[in-house]
Amino acid sequence: MEPGPAAAPAPLPLRLPLRLPLRLPLPGERMGVPTPKQFCPVLERPLISYTLQALESVCWIKDIVVAVTGENMEAMKGIIQKYQHQRISLVAAGVTRHRSIFNGLKALAEDQPDSKLSKPEVVIIHDAVRPFVEEDVLLKVVTAAKEHGAAGAIRPLVSTVISPSADGCLDHSLDRARHRASEMPQAFLFDVIYEAYQQCSDYDLEFGTECLQLALKYGHVHAKLVEGSPDLWKVTYKRDLYAAESIIKERISQHICIVMDTKDENHVGHHLEEILKNELNHVKVTSGALCPAGRDLEQIILEQCYSYVCVNVMSPDFEKTRRLLNMLEESNLSILYPVVVISVYFLDYKSVPFDQKMENLMQIKEYAKEVKKINILLCGLLIYYPQEEQNLQASLRQGATIIATLIKERNSGLVGQLLVA
Amino acid sequence: MEPGPAAAPAPLPLRLPLRLPLRLPLPGERMGVPTPKQFCPVLERPLISYTLQALESVCWIKDIVVAVTGENMEAMKGIIQKYQHQRISLVAAGVTRHRSIFNGLKALAEDQPDSKLSKPEVVIIHDAVRPFVEEDVLLKVVTAAKEHGAAGAIRPLVSTVISPSADGCLDHSLDRARHRASEMPQAFLFDVIYEAYQQCSDYDLEFGTECLQLALKYGHVHAKLVEGSPDLWKVTYKRDLYAAESIIKERISQHICIVMDTKDENHVGHHLEEILKNELNHVKVTSGALCPAGRDLEQIILEQCYSYVCVNVMSPDFEKTRRLLNMLEESNLSILYPVVVISVYFLDYKSVPFDQKMENLMQIKEYAKEVKKINILLCGLLIYYPQEEQNLQASLRQGATIIATLIKERNSGLVGQLLVA
Repeated sequence: MEPGPAAAPAPLPLRLPLRLPLRLPLPGERMGVPTPKQFCPVLERPLISYTLQALESVCWIKDIVVAVTGENMEAMKGIIQKYQHQRISLVAAGVTRHRSIFNGLKALAEDQPDSKLSKPEVVIIHDAVRPFVEEDVLLKVVTAAKEHGAAGAIRPLVSTVISPSADGCLDHSLDRARHRASEMPQAFLFDVIYEAYQQCSDYDLEFGTECLQLALKYGHVHAKLVEGSPDLWKVTYKRDLYAAESIIKERISQHICIVMDTKDENHVGHHLEEILKNELNHVKVTSGALCPAGRDLEQIILEQCYSYVCVNVMSPDFEKTRRLLNMLEESNLSILYPVVVISVYFLDYKSVPFDQKMENLMQIKEYAKEVKKINILLCGLLIYYPQEEQNLQASLRQGATIIATLIKERNSGLVGQLLVA
Repeated sequence: MEPGPAAAPAPLPLRLPLRLPLRLPLPGERMGVPTPKQFCPVLERPLISYTLQALESVCWIKDIVVAVTGENMEAMKGIIQKYQHQRISLVAAGVTRHRSIFNGLKALAEDQPDSKLSKPEVVIIHDAVRPFVEEDVLLKVVTAAKEHGAAGAIRPLVSTVISPSADGCLDHSLDRARHRASEMPQAFLFDVIYEAYQQCSDYDLEFGTECLQLALKYGHVHAKLVEGSPDLWKVTYKRDLYAAESIIKERISQHICIVMDTKDENHVGHHLEEILKNELNHVKVTSGALCPAGRDLEQIILEQCYSYVCVNVMSPDFEKTRRLLNMLEESNLSILYPVVVISVYFLDYKSVPFDQKMENLMQIKEYAKEVKKINILLCGLLIYYPQEEQNLQASLRQGATIIATLIKERNSGLVGQLLVA
């Protein structure tokens, strides 16, 4: 079956060698950090795991080949195991970018008798340090590669490009409108790029940076250029790691599930829900119930909601929260991202058995310590109740602000705290 | 006086027109946000204010000229007033980058009779959206401009640059090693760049992007290219705002001052200080005392320390914290950045008058609300004391983690909270 250029996402006979730009004169030199950039933690998970996750989520990508240096091979195997990555084959990296890609291609070529992989029609080449690649652009480059033989994502230039003279002065500047930055992913008919690599010179393998140029030089293929999104950028400097972490935090905070233990729509817990809906623009707030059988909550967990607010009406115990935590633990949801759970209590601080309630609630520190081990971040929030209407509204608004802060920051340093609104 | 190329930072007869790239087809289009990027808030302060602050801190920059569109003129005046910027003149922006710069240069030229500004020998051109410019690179471009007539900061290319053909395919790719990204700042002998602008064509003014190119084309000056740091990058996309915020938060969290109300070196407060010193690598931890006369603390405030830990030994009141807050308020330190103050208490929760102590401490919410108005973020931290040695060490470590989190995140959503370690 040969899907035409306009075909919808369909299973393509596609293998993907994922190139790791592992040859850095000093590992991670440009980051100002000692770890090679693809292994730098983002929300405590190595950057490359996010890239693998993005590629795995595309069902028509059949195999993912990663080129890894010998010294990082064990670390890479550990990452694949810990984050349960699938369809990954590892090959030895070369000493340059092009040599690593060539190794990946060799592993896919039919002339490798001991390989479990088989030769694909189309191959995608991607960077380990571009974690935000989406199915849309992957499909575009693959479709264009089928028609043109090669295709690659491009972006407008942010800075003007200039050419220096030998003495470090300006020779000429390039017209920004007539040039583009070549980004990743790129896709090729396998034979086109593999033959180009087989023919190319040692100089190309040593100093080249552009696969599309090899396809042009040796395969006479003019690659189709596809406009990519800004999120395709290459994580290069320390600031890029900061940006990646903020983008990921923002994405996993777009959906908050409120688990309420009452159906009474006049209850103050519902007022809190309303305020959260109003204050958090662009955030989807849904309700899940723990009973009967918690089926809708299971659905929300399946939809990969990473933020939960468990509202406890007058019951100063952890029964509901514990059931939610059990469901989350069974789902394995927190393997990839930290899950935030905020347990909210409406409490009259001045009531006589308050001390006892507090003692119950202080147990949250122990629960939080337990579930932090499986990447669940648990906090408590106390809201004084009943109180006069105006003060109550102020408390609920402050509660919403605290909830939004805990979900947005997703910082493990504050787990087990009982916050007060 | 004419400082030679190797001269140290000295008062230069320099005026700086700061160019705002205000002509965006849709304001802030590339950011995915509605506000023009230079006015986007970073830690609640507009980005351009950080850039102005960086330039103001260089004593030999005499005047700063900012080109602003009519619709943003009032907002810009408000920013200058609120953040107390000095040496700023505003001119009307043009409809393109080059027209805005030309307007800035005209304001500095002697032939403008109604201007308070006078013609400088050297002029720097900079972007409003590059807030991390440092004196070092400014001095380098100015020194080189004096020798060569023009100079600009450059960076290695992150992506390969390609040239597309008319049908959207690859025409050729450029050798990455032989090209550079042209960044800012740039510096010029005033006459060189002003004459270039006077001579240049409408096409240049409309479609040009590179001032160094104008100096070459009309002034026959081959600009000296100066290697800049990665931090010179242009805040262009939403992710760049995230990165800028993280960089700023990191920078202002590098110095923590611990204010202790005891000189007893065996006291548990000093153990906390030791743990903070050990756990926060690269962070400078200094001690300040409130008495006598708090002179060393005044010095620390003058050195722009933005993070304070006020350790209260067995006294569950806000007396010391209030004195610190008063000193901070008088210093105006929090005009530019949010100042974090964490008030630490060592308390026996089980002692009889505990309820009363807590009632005292709950007042922190009211204090926090007050000082938040002047950009001071106040939180409390309770550490159970006395307790068994091993547990105490665990509590102190957790306390240090909470302190580090509050300082690093600097989020106003949690002010007034009493956290428990």
